[in-house]
Amino acid sequence: MEKLFHGGDIYSKRDIPKNTKLIDFSANINPLGMPQEVKRAIIDNIDLYNNYPDPLCAELINEISKHENIPAEQVICGNGAADIIYRIAAAIKPKITLLTAPTFSEYEEAVKTVNSSVRYHFLLEKNGFNLDQSIFDKLEPSVDLMFLCNPNNPTGIPIDKEIVMEIAARCKVNKTILVVDECFNDFLENSRDYSIIEELGDFDNVIVLKAFTKIYAMAGIRLGYGLCSNKDIIDRLYKAGQPWNVSVIAQKCGIAALKETEYVTQTKMLIKENREYLISKLKLLGLKVFESQANYILFKTKNKLLQHELEKCGILIRSCGNYVGLNDTYFRIAVKAKEDNEHLVRSMEQYLDTIEVVK
Amino acid sequence: MEKLFHGGDIYSKRDIPKNTKLIDFSANINPLGMPQEVKRAIIDNIDLYNNYPDPLCAELINEISKHENIPAEQVICGNGAADIIYRIAAAIKPKITLLTAPTFSEYEEAVKTVNSSVRYHFLLEKNGFNLDQSIFDKLEPSVDLMFLCNPNNPTGIPIDKEIVMEIAARCKVNKTILVVDECFNDFLENSRDYSIIEELGDFDNVIVLKAFTKIYAMAGIRLGYGLCSNKDIIDRLYKAGQPWNVSVIAQKCGIAALKETEYVTQTKMLIKENREYLISKLKLLGLKVFESQANYILFKTKNKLLQHELEKCGILIRSCGNYVGLNDTYFRIAVKAKEDNEHLVRSMEQYLDTIEVVK
Repeated sequence: MEKLFHGGDIYSKRDIPKNTKLIDFSANINPLGMPQEVKRAIIDNIDLYNNYPDPLCAELINEISKHENIPAEQVICGNGAADIIYRIAAAIKPKITLLTAPTFSEYEEAVKTVNSSVRYHFLLEKNGFNLDQSIFDKLEPSVDLMFLCNPNNPTGIPIDKEIVMEIAARCKVNKTILVVDECFNDFLENSRDYSIIEELGDFDNVIVLKAFTKIYAMAGIRLGYGLCSNKDIIDRLYKAGQPWNVSVIAQKCGIAALKETEYVTQTKMLIKENREYLISKLKLLGLKVFESQANYILFKTKNKLLQHELEKCGILIRSCGNYVGLNDTYFRIAVKAKEDNEHLVRSMEQYLDTIEVVK
Repeated sequence: MEKLFHGGDIYSKRDIPKNTKLIDFSANINPLGMPQEVKRAIIDNIDLYNNYPDPLCAELINEISKHENIPAEQVICGNGAADIIYRIAAAIKPKITLLTAPTFSEYEEAVKTVNSSVRYHFLLEKNGFNLDQSIFDKLEPSVDLMFLCNPNNPTGIPIDKEIVMEIAARCKVNKTILVVDECFNDFLENSRDYSIIEELGDFDNVIVLKAFTKIYAMAGIRLGYGLCSNKDIIDRLYKAGQPWNVSVIAQKCGIAALKETEYVTQTKMLIKENREYLISKLKLLGLKVFESQANYILFKTKNKLLQHELEKCGILIRSCGNYVGLNDTYFRIAVKAKEDNEHLVRSMEQYLDTIEVVK
């Protein structure tokens, strides 16, 4: 198996000095950690884990349905949102897929499993990697499937809702299935302004992806879901993979997590404050920083060794060298808790003293 | 979503009298329940579940490698064995798949996702549903993929190792990928006599499936694995689905479970004794019982209402009406703990007094 290039790889052996604590800025997970009530749910339900999970996730979907104000039959749960991404590829079997570049790499990996060819719409650095109306030119009937990541990963930049709506409408005319990945939407200050979930009833060609993984710090539990008003698509997504994809633990954790409204409010405040701190400090270091509104930040430096040097202090950051549309001068960091962010900044200050900094 | 027809459906609402305990004979799970040390592992590692799982499952695969005496690079873990079954379909993309009938229905569901056509080799009731040399006639180069379930589900009948070896050899000549599902092998009295894991080095066309789900009663956790000496196939299985398919919990539980050798020995004894009890009692009731050697038993009755009647006493059994090669006069029950088995027998005795019994 070749090496996997994603954030969150805290498992590979590294050349880190003994007694150095590993701090992972490479995975974008809520720094508040998993809510206590979710941990309690894991323990309270421990005698149920010998049973097969409910393939239909009835109890959990009922709660998601209320949370999202969407009919239960328009919800499908997955073993993380990534499970739904691969099911979409298997169910739709696109011949041509349209992606922005850069964006989350698993869309391309997923459609490769069905031998789809991929067209890219490149987001330009000179436009701050914003997605604008220029994408409309790429929307044509030959495109079977399109993914939009909103806010985008790794830039943290949200797409204006008017643009998403126009894309959805044109895709509908073209019979293109549009997947809008809103997995990081809950970290935005004004989440609802950017979500198209309320409009799903108007677009039977749109699937929205959401995750518990990031906002509830449940990445090791695995839980995500898809929303779609098209019953035929939901049915095909069920049949595109095994029936028991969502563990009993994940179902119980999801039900507990959806009660955590105060935790989500706190998260938004914490992320905003710490993101602003990190962006200002990175700019002071002379780095080119892009205007994320999510819980991670993309920046650029000529110092390709930055990742390697920070590893020596036990700090993991995400090289963006394997993103289509970026290269190894771009890095992504997560917005973590104050103390960790300060530690990162101090380490970078110390290290960047000795290297060339690029505006 | 249409109704799912599998065992283990303890979630659907039923017309069961209040205060009646539900006893699930429809799912084939170790009646000893999840080992205490596995439960302890879930709790002890609770602070790790905010992290993404290791996509390569390095620590777990290292333990599986020692347990199976197979090189680590020949192991891939899955979100239950069912995850590997769907990955096999996605990776191999068979045009023609050969299945026995009856057998586990997810093989066919999985290959349907890649539009494979399916050929059946019917196992005959007059031969006790044993698989014999007559299957050799079905082995030809046009078959891309073949599944063998050993012991078979729902019959519990193991296939002689000589026959499996001959099938593997002929498939190799024909360039057919052969999947041998040994998920219930650990419940057999002489497990090793029926496994071809030791011979995998000779067959680069064979994938063996194993599960933690059943033998360690971890169905709600989800963990299975595939073994294959062909590095190219292992790589393709990794790429056929998401990287984070095995949760951190499942990885930690798997590591803890593999230490439970005494638990497995106890399980084999418990299953043998209780299977023999159930078979003898079912025969005394005048039912046609097939000679399972696993932790579940197939039997036949003219009384199609049996499942419905037992539900009224809170007992779930598996109708085999949706197995290709069987019909709704066949039922499967799990071998459970003594007390539960006795309760089942008493309930059946009571009910069968009033109905016609078929030899």
